[in-house]
Amino acid sequence: MKHESKPAVVLLSGGLDSATCLAICKDRGFTPFAISFRYGQRHSIELERASLIAERAGVAKHAIINIDLGAIGGSALTDVNLAVPKHELASEIGTEIPLTYVPARNTVFLSYALGWAEVLGALDIYIGVNALDYSGYPDCRPEYIEAFETMANLATKSGVEGKKIKIHTPLIQLSKSEIIQAGMKLGVDYGLTLSCYDPGETGQACGHCDSCLLRQRGFDQLGLADPARGK
Amino acid sequence: MKHESKPAVVLLSGGLDSATCLAICKDRGFTPFAISFRYGQRHSIELERASLIAERAGVAKHAIINIDLGAIGGSALTDVNLAVPKHELASEIGTEIPLTYVPARNTVFLSYALGWAEVLGALDIYIGVNALDYSGYPDCRPEYIEAFETMANLATKSGVEGKKIKIHTPLIQLSKSEIIQAGMKLGVDYGLTLSCYDPGETGQACGHCDSCLLRQRGFDQLGLADPARGK
Repeated sequence: MKHESKPAVVLLSGGLDSATCLAICKDRGFTPFAISFRYGQRHSIELERASLIAERAGVAKHAIINIDLGAIGGSALTDVNLAVPKHELASEIGTEIPLTYVPARNTVFLSYALGWAEVLGALDIYIGVNALDYSGYPDCRPEYIEAFETMANLATKSGVEGKKIKIHTPLIQLSKSEIIQAGMKLGVDYGLTLSCYDPGETGQACGHCDSCLLRQRGFDQLGLADPARGK
Repeated sequence: MKHESKPAVVLLSGGLDSATCLAICKDRGFTPFAISFRYGQRHSIELERASLIAERAGVAKHAIINIDLGAIGGSALTDVNLAVPKHELASEIGTEIPLTYVPARNTVFLSYALGWAEVLGALDIYIGVNALDYSGYPDCRPEYIEAFETMANLATKSGVEGKKIKIHTPLIQLSKSEIIQAGMKLGVDYGLTLSCYDPGETGQACGHCDSCLLRQRGFDQLGLADPARGK
C-alpha cells in the first residue's frame, strides 16, 4: 500500500465504477476519504456494499450522508410510483434522458464532496463518471465536470487562496470492459459491487435494467464471468 | 397579487435578505416555491421564521430539506465547539474568510434548488446573496454565481434541451439599506426576519455578530428602527 499525506474525497456508490475509481485514487498515492449517500434510493443495499468496499480498500474514513433527494421526486430510482425501465439501453435507443435520471444528483453529491474536501484541506475529488458506456445522464459528461470544477474553485476558501481544486474522472473515457480491466489489475473484488438499479432485497441484480446490461456486456467483452452473478 | 404560470425556486433562510429576495421574485410575476434547509445550524429558529415568511408571501410550496452539513463540520455556525465571533465585521477587517463560513453551503443549497427546479419544470432560481454588505464568503460573489449557472445548464435535462436556467441575484449589488428600502416598498415585514448567527432560544438577535451589525447599520443609515428589535 502506498501512502502519502495528500487526502482525496472519493464518491463511492457501491457500484462497479466507483469501486474502480477508489482503487485508482489509492493507486495514485492519495489517502482516500470515501463518501456515500442515502438519498431515498430503492437500491439502498448498495450502501452496504459501499461500506464493505471502503473497508477492504482501507479508506481513512467512510462518510454516509443522509439526503432528502427523494423529497423532491422525479426519478424512477427514488419515486416508488415510477417503474424502473427494463430491457432498453437508453444510450443506444437515442438521445432521450432516461427515467432513471435523478435530478441534479451528481451536482448535489459533488457539492457535499466539495464541502468535505474543504474541511479536510483536500484539493482532490474523485468521481467515477463515464461518458461512454453510460446511461445518457447529462451530469456524466466531461463538459459538466469541467464546469463544476470551475465553479468549485470560485466557491471555496481554497480557490480564493489560489489552491486549485481538481475533480478527477479517471473512468470518463473508458469503456465498461476497460474499467473492469483497470480494476482487476488493482485487485478490485467485483463480487462485492452492485450495479443494479432494481436489486432484490438481498442484493441480487435484476439482470435486465440499463445498468445490469452495461455491466454484463463489459464482462462479456472480456470473456469473463461477473463474480457478482449468482450471489 | 400578480400570478403567472412561471414557477421559480427561491432560497429562503428566514433572514432579511432572502425575505426581500422572495418579495422581488413574486413582484416580478413568478410563482415562488420556497426552499429552506435544516443543516445543523445553531440558529434553527430561523426556520420557524422562514415558514412564517413563506406563508405570508403565499408561496406555492415551502420545502424544508434536512441536510447533513453539520456532519462534515468546519464552521462556527454548525460546530458547537467553535464560538461565533462577536464585534468584528469581517468585510471591514480585511480579506480573511470568517469562521462563520460554512463549507460549500451555497453550492449545496443551490444544488438542491436546481434539482427541485428540474422536477417542477422551473428555469428560474432566486438567491439573496449580496456582494457588498456581506461577510466575505467566496460563494456570495457574482463570478461564483455565474459559474454555478454555467454548470447548472450542463447538469440538467433543461440545459440539454436548450432551455436556459437562470440564477437570479436581485440583491447582489445592493447595500443593506438599499435592500431594506426595496423590501419595504414591497411590503416585507422585517419584524418576522431573523438575521443573527447566534440568537437566543426565542429568537432574540444577539446584536453583536457580523450579521446583526450589518443589519443594524442598514436600518441606521435609513434612520429607521429595526422592527425585529426588542422582540
